[in-house]
Amino acid sequence: MEELLARIASPSDVRALPEEALPQLCAELREDIIAICGRVGGHLGASLGAVELIVALHRVFHSPTDAILFDVGHQAYAHKLLTGRRERMLTLRQAGGVAPFLDPRESPHDALLAGHSCTAVSAALGVLEGRRMLGQRGHVVAVLGDGGLTGGLTFEGLNNAGGSHLPLVVVLNDNQMSISANVGAIPSLLRTRGARDFFEGLGFTYVGPVDGHDLGALVRALREARASTRPVVVHALTQKGRGFPPAEADAQTRGHAMGPYEWRDGKLVRSRGGQRTFSEAFASVLEEAMAEDPRVVAVTPAMLEGSALNALKARFPDRVHDVGIAEQHAVTFCAGLAAAGARPVCCIYSTFLQRAYDQIIHDVCLPGLPVVFAVDRAGLVGADGATHQGTYDVASLRPLPELRQWAPVVGEDLAPMLATALAAPTPSVIRFPRGTLPALPPEVQVGAAPLDGARWLRRVENPRLTLVTLGPLGLAALEAAREEPAWSVLDARGASPLDEAALLEAAACGHVVVAEEGTTRGGLGSAVLELYAERGVAPRVRVLGMPDAFVPHGDARVQRAELGLDAAGLRHAGRRLLEGSAR
Amino acid sequence: MEELLARIASPSDVRALPEEALPQLCAELREDIIAICGRVGGHLGASLGAVELIVALHRVFHSPTDAILFDVGHQAYAHKLLTGRRERMLTLRQAGGVAPFLDPRESPHDALLAGHSCTAVSAALGVLEGRRMLGQRGHVVAVLGDGGLTGGLTFEGLNNAGGSHLPLVVVLNDNQMSISANVGAIPSLLRTRGARDFFEGLGFTYVGPVDGHDLGALVRALREARASTRPVVVHALTQKGRGFPPAEADAQTRGHAMGPYEWRDGKLVRSRGGQRTFSEAFASVLEEAMAEDPRVVAVTPAMLEGSALNALKARFPDRVHDVGIAEQHAVTFCAGLAAAGARPVCCIYSTFLQRAYDQIIHDVCLPGLPVVFAVDRAGLVGADGATHQGTYDVASLRPLPELRQWAPVVGEDLAPMLATALAAPTPSVIRFPRGTLPALPPEVQVGAAPLDGARWLRRVENPRLTLVTLGPLGLAALEAAREEPAWSVLDARGASPLDEAALLEAAACGHVVVAEEGTTRGGLGSAVLELYAERGVAPRVRVLGMPDAFVPHGDARVQRAELGLDAAGLRHAGRRLLEGSAR
Repeated sequence: MEELLARIASPSDVRALPEEALPQLCAELREDIIAICGRVGGHLGASLGAVELIVALHRVFHSPTDAILFDVGHQAYAHKLLTGRRERMLTLRQAGGVAPFLDPRESPHDALLAGHSCTAVSAALGVLEGRRMLGQRGHVVAVLGDGGLTGGLTFEGLNNAGGSHLPLVVVLNDNQMSISANVGAIPSLLRTRGARDFFEGLGFTYVGPVDGHDLGALVRALREARASTRPVVVHALTQKGRGFPPAEADAQTRGHAMGPYEWRDGKLVRSRGGQRTFSEAFASVLEEAMAEDPRVVAVTPAMLEGSALNALKARFPDRVHDVGIAEQHAVTFCAGLAAAGARPVCCIYSTFLQRAYDQIIHDVCLPGLPVVFAVDRAGLVGADGATHQGTYDVASLRPLPELRQWAPVVGEDLAPMLATALAAPTPSVIRFPRGTLPALPPEVQVGAAPLDGARWLRRVENPRLTLVTLGPLGLAALEAAREEPAWSVLDARGASPLDEAALLEAAACGHVVVAEEGTTRGGLGSAVLELYAERGVAPRVRVLGMPDAFVPHGDARVQRAELGLDAAGLRHAGRRLLEGSAR
Repeated sequence: MEELLARIASPSDVRALPEEALPQLCAELREDIIAICGRVGGHLGASLGAVELIVALHRVFHSPTDAILFDVGHQAYAHKLLTGRRERMLTLRQAGGVAPFLDPRESPHDALLAGHSCTAVSAALGVLEGRRMLGQRGHVVAVLGDGGLTGGLTFEGLNNAGGSHLPLVVVLNDNQMSISANVGAIPSLLRTRGARDFFEGLGFTYVGPVDGHDLGALVRALREARASTRPVVVHALTQKGRGFPPAEADAQTRGHAMGPYEWRDGKLVRSRGGQRTFSEAFASVLEEAMAEDPRVVAVTPAMLEGSALNALKARFPDRVHDVGIAEQHAVTFCAGLAAAGARPVCCIYSTFLQRAYDQIIHDVCLPGLPVVFAVDRAGLVGADGATHQGTYDVASLRPLPELRQWAPVVGEDLAPMLATALAAPTPSVIRFPRGTLPALPPEVQVGAAPLDGARWLRRVENPRLTLVTLGPLGLAALEAAREEPAWSVLDARGASPLDEAALLEAAACGHVVVAEEGTTRGGLGSAVLELYAERGVAPRVRVLGMPDAFVPHGDARVQRAELGLDAAGLRHAGRRLLEGSAR
């Protein structure tokens, strides 16, 4: 049969197809998605589940005159394939390639830039109200997962949309999963008549539930929604991972993020790296802490897999809480746990922690409660790109009183850090990067809890320069210093509080390079500069870190080299500083 | 009749009273609240509405064994009066006096420290789960306003509580108001049978609605809730401002925050300062911008009064959006408006902006949308205290790419700043303090839009020292420099981007004092230090700002003097720096 996808350059080509061609189109989209994820990896499960829904959306609505806002965007590979990006799809998530999520700068059919969930309803209501105000036409559609329905931002948007009486179309793509099983009361609610009550109570007309793989039913429901003059929700039941047996069989996440893999003769031939990650090392250390101390409890906002907590959940089902996509609640819930005398460890990615900034300030730091934040994906994240970079945690959290910030250089540092944090009467942050664990070099002495102060990784006599680093950059600094007999290397171990004595010793040598994987605007480098200004010492200081721009998707190792955050970059920066040029 | 309140030292005394004495107790509580707010001002309306509810809570539950968590805490003056703080209530909100909200450090009966709303359900669930885990007994009650029900954090908490099957008691104190009228679909929902459906759908047993001023009914409902073995909500209908005619008659806020006032012979004798505030000046400037440009639209999360937007709302009802207590939605809604081509101005307090940190990063800055953030209450806020200080906006927002930060010295600066921000293709922040407008001194030249760079407030020949300031501190700097012929004064006008030429000129004099009303950890001072390090210049720099601690309630003017953030403090810091001591 002739391939249909080759003829589809934009949604109008989808609308031009005869109805009877659509099942073939959906089959081709699935084949493409499975092949692409096999080659380059990606968000397989959600995208497979949304194939018919996306085809139906493009049959009924006229993008870009009608704006379709996909929440998160990881479910929208079919949308990418139908909007002129098919030929470039094998560059997905790679440097310069197709974006990991959706991005209006990539296509006029991407009405929303998102990588964090729960933003679509609010943004769509804004677009609709803006168009109303400016006299522009076009329908506005927010496509939302049931996982995104547990997030507070979505609820705030629904409450306002329902009260607005504007004809916002919300499409609930209900695959009964966040990344893993959805949590709380909402999943059961959606399986009952309560779904209708819930949305009608919030001021929406409710259409559904509709079989999210029945194209005819979807088109009818969406047409009904399009005709509505008031807020309307279409509730579509879909199957995450549909059409790819290994995903359908994956009970944990239904193939949420997979690959690369080989799919041959109905069998999955997957190449797994198997190298241990910082996340796994932290989960192991946390497991030991939980085994030792019955007060320790873990909390994650829908990141059981990402934070490697599945084994922990199996062992301590009552002491590992997946609260769903609900970052604010995760933190305030931890505050309550701590107030009751428990020792909560909140496992959260740096980028999602941004969602709970006020809860950290107001609910944890202000009452001074001993919550431990295990901040994963701190620094460069690679393929997930700009929406997921762990850039701002150090700078935004450093000003908070009594919040101690730690960062391991090697996985072996995690145990004493967690022990130190759990023994403290005040809150702590332990930030670690995405990626595999480095080997422990002989120069790195792992301390015992309670840790205190910075750690010299290399301390020479009469140094001319000191490299001061945060986290695994200490290893790059050691490497950089190997050819430089007069360079010392200091692992700051954290950005707050500072080890003043060690940093003043560093200052005494006259030249200090501070390097961190995070923004240089307010991070460790600024902390060091503040200290030196307070103490009236003035070494030459060069601060290296992430740039004043959003870092796109790409290979994190390559990006580190490009940003000068590797051994060569540190060596170069140090030499330039010594040569008397600050740049 | 004998005064009952004089005999009440703790909740057990409330429980010891005969039932027939309770109406008198409530009357005395109301009298006290009216008298106290008349003397020292305070959150009158909500506290008057919650009198019977609080008495009933303390009759049914045994604080502190049973934990009662009041959301926000501004409704809980009766609780303060019943828990041993009556004699000190005239020190309310003053330095060293009774806290503006609730604080466990003030009383063991205050189970939650809060000043921001929507935290009670999540925190209460944490306390309950923590107690379960640790084998402790006691009921846990979250008391929530209907305003807090529109906030996403509450919904996240309800979803998790409903799914947990733990016997959490939620008491909905439904006075049909946030600070002003509640918004969105929820208010109508709560007036119908839909309220039951909503809570039952979220996994709660629903008790109510109950008359929140009928003590007998309240006690019965709360007893039923106490006996529940699963999550339960008691829906109490109350009247904000009840029992105080001027509050009952106030259609806008029902006497939300009043006084001081005199209440004599059934008449309100109020002394209004009448001095124009920064909020009012900004609202005027915004009104002009809206009159000129039909694309401009204002958004506030439940702060119509606080942000002085009532007149604007009356004039442009369709272009001023109160979205309720929903800070995240406010910002993402603005992102949608901007994406549609509108020019949204998000009016929000510095402390509440923390709630939307991720939305500013991910929804506004990452796509580079031209949203203007009018950040009110930036810096010291006085009587509202630690939960409301505007401390972290500069430091947390400064690292964000393309986000321009502005701060007016005088009210006259606001017009060109807003015009500059509205003309920019990228997002902007305009931060201004709580309080009255200063007079415009002759030294301050108000520029015309588009503003660019810093502004010399005083530029002497051969300066020995430059004072660099942000916002109205420029006036204190001018005052400080009046006795110092060799001091220049530079208004940085913002913290990002920096005016490098002006700051390098400042550096050339050898001594720079940077002063800001915000944290010194990552703020303007750090920005200046970063610039100097990058450029390889090393003047002596002293950074003044808010301390590394939460600043409690008190008189902001007194606190400024104590923190050295007034003319005397700046002069002292400058002189010390010149004397060669950095401290």
